[in-house]
Order: sequence, then structure tokens, then C-alpha cells
Amino acid sequence: MKGSFKVIPASITAPSGFKAAGVFCDIKRLGTGKGSNKGRKRDLGLLVSEVPATVAGLFTTNQVCAAPVKVSVARAQQVAARAIVANSGNANACTGEQGLRDAGEMTAFAADHLGIQPKEVLVCSTGRIGVQMPMDQVRQGITAAVPLLNETAENGHHLAEAIMTSDTRPKEVAVEFRLAGKTVRLAGICKGAGMIQPGMSPSGRRPASVPLHATMLCFLATDAAIDSAALKAALKEAVANSFNRITVDGDMSTNDSVIILANGLAGNPKLTLKQREGADFQSFQAALDHVTLELAKMIVRDGEGVSRFITVRLTGAASFKDADAAARAVANSALVKTSWCGGDPNWGRILDALGYSPAKVVEEKVDLGYSPAGSRKILWALRGGQPTKTTLAALKEIVTSKEFDLHIDLHIGSGSAVIYTADLTEEYVDFNKGE
Amino acid sequence: MKGSFKVIPASITAPSGFKAAGVFCDIKRLGTGKGSNKGRKRDLGLLVSEVPATVAGLFTTNQVCAAPVKVSVARAQQVAARAIVANSGNANACTGEQGLRDAGEMTAFAADHLGIQPKEVLVCSTGRIGVQMPMDQVRQGITAAVPLLNETAENGHHLAEAIMTSDTRPKEVAVEFRLAGKTVRLAGICKGAGMIQPGMSPSGRRPASVPLHATMLCFLATDAAIDSAALKAALKEAVANSFNRITVDGDMSTNDSVIILANGLAGNPKLTLKQREGADFQSFQAALDHVTLELAKMIVRDGEGVSRFITVRLTGAASFKDADAAARAVANSALVKTSWCGGDPNWGRILDALGYSPAKVVEEKVDLGYSPAGSRKILWALRGGQPTKTTLAALKEIVTSKEFDLHIDLHIGSGSAVIYTADLTEEYVDFNKGE
Repeated sequence: MKGSFKVIPASITAPSGFKAAGVFCDIKRLGTGKGSNKGRKRDLGLLVSEVPATVAGLFTTNQVCAAPVKVSVARAQQVAARAIVANSGNANACTGEQGLRDAGEMTAFAADHLGIQPKEVLVCSTGRIGVQMPMDQVRQGITAAVPLLNETAENGHHLAEAIMTSDTRPKEVAVEFRLAGKTVRLAGICKGAGMIQPGMSPSGRRPASVPLHATMLCFLATDAAIDSAALKAALKEAVANSFNRITVDGDMSTNDSVIILANGLAGNPKLTLKQREGADFQSFQAALDHVTLELAKMIVRDGEGVSRFITVRLTGAASFKDADAAARAVANSALVKTSWCGGDPNWGRILDALGYSPAKVVEEKVDLGYSPAGSRKILWALRGGQPTKTTLAALKEIVTSKEFDLHIDLHIGSGSAVIYTADLTEEYVDFNKGE
Repeated sequence: MKGSFKVIPASITAPSGFKAAGVFCDIKRLGTGKGSNKGRKRDLGLLVSEVPATVAGLFTTNQVCAAPVKVSVARAQQVAARAIVANSGNANACTGEQGLRDAGEMTAFAADHLGIQPKEVLVCSTGRIGVQMPMDQVRQGITAAVPLLNETAENGHHLAEAIMTSDTRPKEVAVEFRLAGKTVRLAGICKGAGMIQPGMSPSGRRPASVPLHATMLCFLATDAAIDSAALKAALKEAVANSFNRITVDGDMSTNDSVIILANGLAGNPKLTLKQREGADFQSFQAALDHVTLELAKMIVRDGEGVSRFITVRLTGAASFKDADAAARAVANSALVKTSWCGGDPNWGRILDALGYSPAKVVEEKVDLGYSPAGSRKILWALRGGQPTKTTLAALKEIVTSKEFDLHIDLHIGSGSAVIYTADLTEEYVDFNKGE
């Protein structure tokens, strides 16, 4: 087993030295139009480390990226930071020069109230695109949040609520593990719902090899001691196997951001990149992988209108790139997603999507089957491109579950990829067809 | 003006020497499950030229392609053919060796009854994937259809009905024009509805430069005299600007096929490729372009659950490839399509989709606006990436219409592309979520 950890009550404040707050400042009422008469919702929050923390971040590779992303990309490349200021209700995207000034001012205003430097503050926004930030509300919110900052789980929950948009519930995970005799904690919160197919890189620039593809925001906090290069490498690996493997609707947002702060207060000997193969680093990586993957899955399960959670397990592709492309073609096909909505195993639509994907596919080689979620008891619908004797009723029993796995083996090479996705429902359309 | 033609009452039998028939043989009842208790529907048809006709065809580039496509690809490369046999209710896709034998037998059985050679018959199927063809029904259908063959418009309509699946209405266009003093007619029928984003090539193989992307079937008949190379070139150009420019749901089918027969009975001097720049060839091309584009638009307007028809006009891209990719990213975005369903101009989602497309996009350069369908009176929502003073109410007035145009200028280069698309509605999801 790669590391061992235990799951503890979830709050972003579980690791030592992290304070949080989440407040109401009416950005949501102003910004979205949605729910504006349904009472106030938390819409601004702060996460602050008592001491400077090693920082790392990954951000949307969308060429149209929001002002807060532009500010935070640069700051996540620093060695250290102290705080994140975040809001929901307004994405500060497609807001031009004014948007960039506003994102900068959010960090400066927060820094001023926290008694730290603006460059120590990262900023994230989510919500409506193309509307200028209501800065009076933002300043009121920060002014109100700072005196409330504390280490209670309640405040952690408030922060998790403050970043929600169309999410129906807050998403929080925390774990505890041991590093060189010291107890270390790592916790995360995130939000998702729609516009979800992240494809993040540290620079916000698109690496040639990374697949193109909500706003999802994720904040991670740990009291582990780890240096900058090590933390940046660990986060990149964790995101590659979690947030960058999900798709709800195939739309990659302008604002996707994952940020981690590691403040070292657990007192373990500082992890470095050189120790990457060592047991301690692996324990840290395993904890980080667990937290990010659980949060990523929560985003899919709580996606807009989602009624089923599907894990697409694609093997036997010519390369990882082919495996990823083939799995995404299936996971993003409107026809496949609507058939899942109806509990219909429709393998014909799946073969069709494989065939038009950019991946090499040979119909006569394809094995395709379904299993209950996480099970290896696969009911094969196709072997070598040909229908098996598995009955439709048996397949339907699996596909009418809330969660199940789709297994595809292309039998061409050794490339494999996993994509976590969801069905496409009438509720999704209804929700997104506007005010 | 590139050629001149007049629109005449639509029937595939309008050109001289073409006979059609469309009959009931219960493939639809057997094959689909859908509508099985709603009475019989025509599901098998024949188009036959009295004399050998020059033939050309373009077919799906999906790697998983149906048995009839495999048969027809080869036969469309011949110089001449005589007939098309087509059915709905069963796509004969993902049906292995048996499927290929059945597709071959359909042509042989029809040829035998028509007193011609099997290689003179092309075959097309549309309907459910992964179910073996009910050959008893098919043979009954062909046997019934052959004696009914005639040149009436009524029979043309019957053939147009026989290829319908989820289409709500038959789709037929015919035109008449003059070539060297002779009266020439060109007519077409098609079907579409779901799984619509064709990307066809003459070989069924994917040209590197062609974008990847229902089943749509289209049969064209003309009494023009034109040689094989000229007809193949003319059809390729027409399809590139019509069927290959539409998307309903972004899913490219296993069965897309466009086939034309030109029997020369109009008696014009035979058109050749060498005359491509000449007035007569241009007249023929203009007529073919008109018929294919009108049919392609009918497919989008009658797409599953479609409530609005949108023309995406993208200009200023670095290349045609970029323009096409950017326009398709917008046209296929679940979030953009659902906002159109609600009559919401949501340019933020459109910018987001442009940003994640593979095309080069610079937010600060993008102009984006809406106009009534076909109008150059554009209401610009964005200029240089910045919102204009155009009111949301003014934009909504356009976007709540049944048909409108979206204009995007990337201001990077001179690449341009047009994509005809539709909104995504709850009806689409309801229809496709299975039995």
C-alpha cells in the first residue's frame, strides 16, 4: 500500500495553523440573478495560514482565463504564500483591465486587513462571466471576514459554503497520517457543478500532451513541511489523476484553480523532491492523491442535474493520449450520456463515439462491458466487436444503478485511462437554459 | 451570380428517367422498439435510373462504420451505377461478418429483381445499431417495392418517408436549370434527426485536414450528363459546404452517406472536370450546392428536440482549420446550446468555448454579436473582448427567435467557417434516454 492515512472529520482547518471564515456580502444576489430572492448565501471567504506556507497551484488552460487566475498563476509560482481570498457569484472573467485591477485589489485589501503582503495572497472567483466585480460588496465581505477568522471546523464549513455556486452541498475531505513520527494533516474543499472538464497546468498554459478540456475550485491545506519544488510536483501528479480526469459537460471553465498551502507546523523533516521515491514522500503523495480524487468525484456526483456517476475505464489503446481521447469521446457524447440517463446500456452509441474519437479503434477488436461501481465482475456486452450472450436485462440492472463502471478494451496497445463522468439529464438543460 | 436555377416541386423523381418506391416491411417494428405500437411506417425504398448513371458518394469517416457503408464506398468509386436500396429501422452497424453478407445480399436481391448487376446497386441503412438485419422483412420489402417503381412525385415522397427515423417530416428539394440549351433537373432527399455531425469523405477514410465529426442519408438524382471525375469533384465540394458544416449533437454516425446518380438523359454535352471553371459546370455546381445546403439545413431544423436554428459565422481565425474548430467548439458546447434553448445570448459561455477550442484565440481581440437569420444588421455584444453598450434586452429579442445568426470575429487572420447548428433541449434528452 502506497502510504497509509486515516480519514478524519472534514474541515479545511483540520491541519495546524489554518484559519478560515466564510461570510455573506451579497455578491450572489447582485451577480447571478439566480436565487436572488431566496435569501442570502455565503459568497466570500478567506483561508489563512498563521505562518508563511509553501504554495503550489494548477490553473485552467482555457485561453480565455479569468482575472483572478492571471493573478494567482504568478503567485503560485512563488515559494511561499499565506492566504487565499475567494468569492462566488461572480467569476471576474471577461472583465478586461478593470477585472485585473479588481482581482489585484481583492488581494491587496485582504493583505492590508491581515497585516501581510499582497503577493502572499492568492485569489479565486467563480460565478457569472462578463460582469464586473461588485467591489463594494467584496470590500465589505473581506472587512467582515477577517475578524471572524478562526480554526474551528464550523468556520471551515463556512468557507466551503462560500465558494459554492450551483453545488447542492459543500465538499470537504480531511486525512491524517504520520511522517517521521510526526502527526500530519491534509484537508481540502472544493466546488463544481457545471462547466466541468478541467485541464489544468501550473502555468495556465496548455502543455502539448495535456488533453484540452467548470469552474471548479479546490483549496488544500496541510501542516506538512515540504519544499516548493516537491509540493509543486506532488500537486501536479495528484491533479493529473483526479480533477483532470473528470468531465460533467465537456466545457472547460475560464476559472478552474487548485491551490495548496503547506505550512510545516507538523514539524516533520522537510520533504524535498530528491526524496520522491522515499516512504515519507509517498505517504504524503498518497494522502494528497486520496483527498484530491475524493473531492474530484464529489464534483461529478454533485454536477448540475446529474443522476448517475460513471467511471469509464479504457484499456488497450495505442497510447495514453489515445486512451484519454477515446474515454473522453465516450464520456462527453450527448447520445451516450442521455442513454445512461435512461438506464440504457446502449453499446452501439458507445462504439460510435469510439469510432469518431481521434484514437485508433478497430471495431473487430473492441471488448465492452459494464460492472457495478468498483467491481471487477464485468458483464461483457461485446467481445471482439461482437455482441455476447449477455442479456439486455442483465446490463440494464447495472446501468440503472446510481453508480457503475464502463469497461472498454481496444486490444491495440497498452495505453489506459480512467475518466469520471455523469449522465445528461433534462434537469441539466432546465438549469442551464437561463434565467 | 454563380449559375441560375429555379426551384420546382420537390421529388427525387423530378429528373428524367428516375423511378422510386417506398414500402412498409416492418423493419421499424422489429428493429427499434420505438413507436412499435404506433402503426406501420414505410421503411424500405428504391431509387432506380432507367439507364446506367454516373455515380459519386461521400461516406462517414467514423472508424466504426456500418456494413452498407463498406459496400457502397467501393461501388461509389465506379464510373456508373443504376440503383440505391435503402432501409430505416436498422442501421446494420456493428453487425460483423453477417452484417456485411446481409448488406451484399440486399444489393444482390434488388439487382436480381431489377434485372441489373449487384455492383450497380448501392445500399444505405439507418436505425438501431447492433442488431442483425431482419432479412426476411428486407426481401419482402424489395419484392414489394420493385413492381411499384414509377416516376410519380408520390412515389418520390414515399421513398423520402421510407428513410426517416426520428425525423418528423420528409426532406425533399428539386431544382431546374439550363445547360447548353437543354433543361436539366437535380433533386435530392435526405434524413437526419440525431447523431448528427457528419464528416464525410469519398473513401470513408479521414483526410488529415478534415474536421472529425447522425446518421444522415442523402440521395441525389439528376438527368445532367457529367463524367465520373467531374461528378465526384462536384459532390465533394457541395458536401464540404453543406452536410459537413452541420452539427446537431456533435455525434458522428456510423452510417452517414451521400450518393448522387447522374443519368445524362437531359442530353446536354457531357460535363468534364476540365470545364470546371466554365459557365455550364458552374451552373451545375450552383444547383448542386443549393440542393445540398437546403437539405442540410432541413436536417438541423428537424433535429431531435430542436427549437432554434443557429448559423455560427466565424471569421478572422488564423486558418480555416482554426475557424472550423472554434465554430464547432461553440456549436457543440452543452452550455452554449442550453443557453440558446432558453433564449439567453450568454456570450460568456461562448467566449469560454472559444477559449478551450484548439484554435488560437485572444480574448482582447474577439468581436461577438447576434443578428436576425441571414441579416447583416449585427448587434455586437463584445468588441475587442469588451462588452458594448448593447442591452441584454436587444440581444434577447434576437436570440428568442426561431432562427438567428451568431457572428464571431477573432481578428487574428483570414480563416473563416460557417457551422449550422441547433439548441439543446429537454426534449432531446427525453427522446434519447431510451425506451
